[in-house]
Formats: sequence, structure tokens, C-alpha cells
Amino acid sequence: MRQSFELLILGSSSASPTSSRNVSAQLLNIAERYFLIDCGEATQIQLRRFKAKFQSIDHIFISHLHGDHFFGLPGLLSSMHLLGRQQPLNIYAPPGLKEVMDKLNKLSDTRLNFPVQWHETSPGTSKMLFEDEKVEVHAFPLQHRIHCNGFLFREKKLPRKIDKFKLEKHKVSTADIQLLRKGLDVLNADGELVKNSELTIDPLPPRAYAYCSDTKYNEEVCGYIQGVDLLYHESTFLEDQAARAAKTFHSTAKQAADIALKAGVKQVLLGHFSARYRVLDDFYTEASAVFPNCLLASDGKLIKI
Amino acid sequence: MRQSFELLILGSSSASPTSSRNVSAQLLNIAERYFLIDCGEATQIQLRRFKAKFQSIDHIFISHLHGDHFFGLPGLLSSMHLLGRQQPLNIYAPPGLKEVMDKLNKLSDTRLNFPVQWHETSPGTSKMLFEDEKVEVHAFPLQHRIHCNGFLFREKKLPRKIDKFKLEKHKVSTADIQLLRKGLDVLNADGELVKNSELTIDPLPPRAYAYCSDTKYNEEVCGYIQGVDLLYHESTFLEDQAARAAKTFHSTAKQAADIALKAGVKQVLLGHFSARYRVLDDFYTEASAVFPNCLLASDGKLIKI
Repeated sequence: MRQSFELLILGSSSASPTSSRNVSAQLLNIAERYFLIDCGEATQIQLRRFKAKFQSIDHIFISHLHGDHFFGLPGLLSSMHLLGRQQPLNIYAPPGLKEVMDKLNKLSDTRLNFPVQWHETSPGTSKMLFEDEKVEVHAFPLQHRIHCNGFLFREKKLPRKIDKFKLEKHKVSTADIQLLRKGLDVLNADGELVKNSELTIDPLPPRAYAYCSDTKYNEEVCGYIQGVDLLYHESTFLEDQAARAAKTFHSTAKQAADIALKAGVKQVLLGHFSARYRVLDDFYTEASAVFPNCLLASDGKLIKI
Repeated sequence: MRQSFELLILGSSSASPTSSRNVSAQLLNIAERYFLIDCGEATQIQLRRFKAKFQSIDHIFISHLHGDHFFGLPGLLSSMHLLGRQQPLNIYAPPGLKEVMDKLNKLSDTRLNFPVQWHETSPGTSKMLFEDEKVEVHAFPLQHRIHCNGFLFREKKLPRKIDKFKLEKHKVSTADIQLLRKGLDVLNADGELVKNSELTIDPLPPRAYAYCSDTKYNEEVCGYIQGVDLLYHESTFLEDQAARAAKTFHSTAKQAADIALKAGVKQVLLGHFSARYRVLDDFYTEASAVFPNCLLASDGKLIKI
């Protein structure tokens, strides 16, 4: 079975929550690594509501320091603590957040029972934030009113798949599986060289997810997100509010679709909708006219990539 | 019609939210003054959910600085700002909160469009926090792990009620109504003294609500809350957890009822239930055995006093 790569939307509203949409947060599961992306107020409530694995989150990425993207952090950490967490938590965030969180904890007499490892993101640059044997996460710059990062989550290249029947046929020992997975040729029981391509098949291509919130229309971002399987791109407004979008450093549905097209992604997911819109149909209509493979975020939506 | 005096429960859980209970917050309406009492995370969401008058809140009282009582403040203020608020907001809170809120606003590049007037509460003392022609609000000390205040909300004595038929009968001018309301005797058209008691009837007695969260069992509190119409008293645990309650400076359901009995209040409301309890029936059973006129808080419950 293929390793998991799925995204749970925890909030799809910009700025303020509405009766049906909470503010920004997403939970991404790649191969059972749980990455929380942004953490607006009440994210811990959304996590419970959608039965997400609360304590499995070991990495939290904060795109920028507008309140709708991080005001849920103090409560989430407090609840993790109260629920007995002991394993470390990594937080990747712009400079300044650690200091305020320390002050909040001091003020509320909170001493977390688990270590928090803070990783400062750097304004305006691209940087690898996390890597293990299966996944890597990169930050890249977005253009917003304040320092803001997008994030790229990428599976590592999977090992080559072994055809076990062919191992027997070519008298190759199972001890050589690790070499075969890496793509190397091996010697068989008769001392003959057997080509890797005789014994293995190509693995599925690695998948990638890119998160772009908040940002004005900016084609430079395409270089960082080229060809990803799923692009989340904010679309705070519809195109008739393009002037307002530009002024507030946000994007319209059409602009999000334009970026998806230019970056050659496979699918685009719109979110971060302004609270002024009750019904979102026009976002789909506008974006899909430019880029048909388009989804709208809604709280609780699970997207398998 | 009698002026309003009603309490809306916005959260009834202690420490962490559960699937059915949010953390502490209550909205008290006395004569169209809206007082928010504590402001745990997601209070703004609860206000929307229960269709409360969001922007009518001019006074917020924070009992103490454990996160479940104030982590909703940054988001609430941000949304008030985004929704166009301009009128001043008063916040009554322990020392230190203003400084952290200022830092949060600076970090998130938030400049509120309305003035916030901060009023520091004083540890361990009783103090009048607010007064106008209809209501007064007092803080009084509770015994918790950190500095914590209870709050007493009291209607002012209502003016005497005029019997208009008797005004005519006794030839008293309507110009004298203000004097009569204050309880004074007046001269009639014939220059005769007419006793106030001939023309007016007693107003309804002023009502009072007391809020006690969080606190260990402490009989000294009875002096501040004697005879109130409704007492909210935390009951984080049931009596079989009395040792745990004492250790964490919380109360049990029985202890809350004991305080209600000793303070001679008319009705007691229990809340701040530990997340360990899914069903709350035992809280009612335990408390009502001591003090029958007992209610359990639940999110969205509206209590007319």
C-alpha cells in the first residue's frame, strides 16, 4: 500500500472566523509524519472536531505572524501539555514568536512538560526546514504585508520496487534487496552480473504539496512550486475585488488559478476566503475557467494526494 | 417591563475544551450593559454561535491569567477591529496582561481602530471596578494557585415606582416625578404636603450575580457574595476527587453547594468541569443534595435572573 499523503483542512477563513469557516490551519500527513501548517485560534478545537491525531503532531509551521495564523498556538500547546505530552515539539516560525510565547507561558504560570524546539524562518529566502528519510520541507518567500513564508512538502524518492519472482528466477539472494532498492546491479548465485532493471520496477514518483498563504499575485513563486501535485493558494477575494486584493497583499480566485497554470501544478486548492463571502460558488467558477482541476477548501475536508 | 439581567454561558470546561464544552467565558447583560466575564480561546466563535451582541461588549473582566480564561482575547479584539469597532473597550485584568497583549499586537502588526482602556485588578483585595447609574461591579479575592478575582455584579437600587392615578387624585404635578422616584415627599397644587408613600410603591429589589472561578473551597468568600440571586461557583471535580481539588486549588460540586448554602444565595450555577467528565449528572446529584436550587452550566445556556 502506498504511504499516506493527505491533507485535512482545519480552517478556510481569512482574518476572522465565520459561522461555517474557522481561520487558517491545515494538518498534513505524509507517511505518518503529522505536520500542522498554521494554527489560527481554535485550531485545537478543530483538531478534536475532525478526530485528528492531536499528539502525533511533531512539527508546526507558522507562515507569518498575523493573528489568524497563530493565535491558536498557546492553547494547543497548553492542551498538549495537559494531555500528558512528553515528546519534543518543533515549531518553525518567523522571529519574535518564541519570545512572546515565553512571555505568555510565564504570565499564565505554564511550564510545559515537553520540550519545544524553535526554528526561526528567514525573511525573504528559501530554506530547507526539515528532512528525514521520507520527507523534506522547504520554506520559500511569499509577498505579503509582513514577512511571510510558503512551505513545500515533498516525499523523498521512493526506493525501487523489487519483483520477488524475478529474484528467484535469476538466483539473486534476498540479502541484496537493499542494493537493488538503491538501483544497483548485483551478482547472482552463479557469480553472474544481473542488471537492476531485470529485477526491479520504477517506484511511484514522489508527491509534493505547496502551501501559499498569504500572498499577493506573484509569479516569482512559480519557481518554488513547479509541478507540485497539489497547490494550496490563498484566494481571499474574487476578481472584482482585485484592487482591494492588491492593496491588502492578497490574491483573487483568478490569480490563484493563474499561478497554478503558470507553475504547471496538477491540482489547485483555494482557501483563506474573506468573511464577506457566505457562498463560495463564484470562487470555483472563476478559478476553474482558468484552471479546471480546482478545489475549494472547507473545514473538515480531507484531500488524498 | 423589568430591565434585563441575563447570563449566557459561552464555555463550561476547565483547562481544555472538549467536544461539547468550550473553556471559560460568560456574557452578562444587565440593563443592556454587556459584560464579558473571562475570555478563553474561541470565545469569539461562541459569541457568534449563540448570536450574542458582539460589538455591544464594552467591558471585559478577566478573573486570572491561566490560559483557559484569556487566550481568546487577542482574537476577539482583532475581530472587533476588523468589524469596524470604534467605541472604547474596557478590560479589567491582573497586572501583566496589557504588556503581553501590546507585544502580541506589535508582533502581528495589529493597530486596533478603537481605544482599549486597561484597568488593573489588585491581588487579594476587594475593589469596585465599574459603576454607572444602573450597575456596579466589584472584584473580590479568590484562593487559587495564582492571583485570581471573583466578580460581583449588582443592579443599583431602582427608583420608586409612581402610581400615576394617585398623582391626579392628589393633584401632584408630573414635574415632581423625579423627586418622587427618589423617595421624597412633595407639595401638591393646593400647597399641601403629600407623603411619598401615598404616591409610590416599592421598586423590585436589586438583583446580584457573583462569579467565582477558579478557587479552592474558601468560606471567606461568603462575605462578598451573601444573598446574591445567582452564584456561579466553579466545580472542577466531584467530591471523590476532593484531595485533587485541594491540591490544584479547585472545588468539588459538594463544596460549591456548601458555599452557596453558607452564603445564603438564591441559586447556584456549577461550571468549569474537568474534561475527564463526559456526563455531568453526578455534579447535579452531589450539589443538589446540599443545595437544591442548583443548575449546571452548559455552552449556550441562557439564564434569566
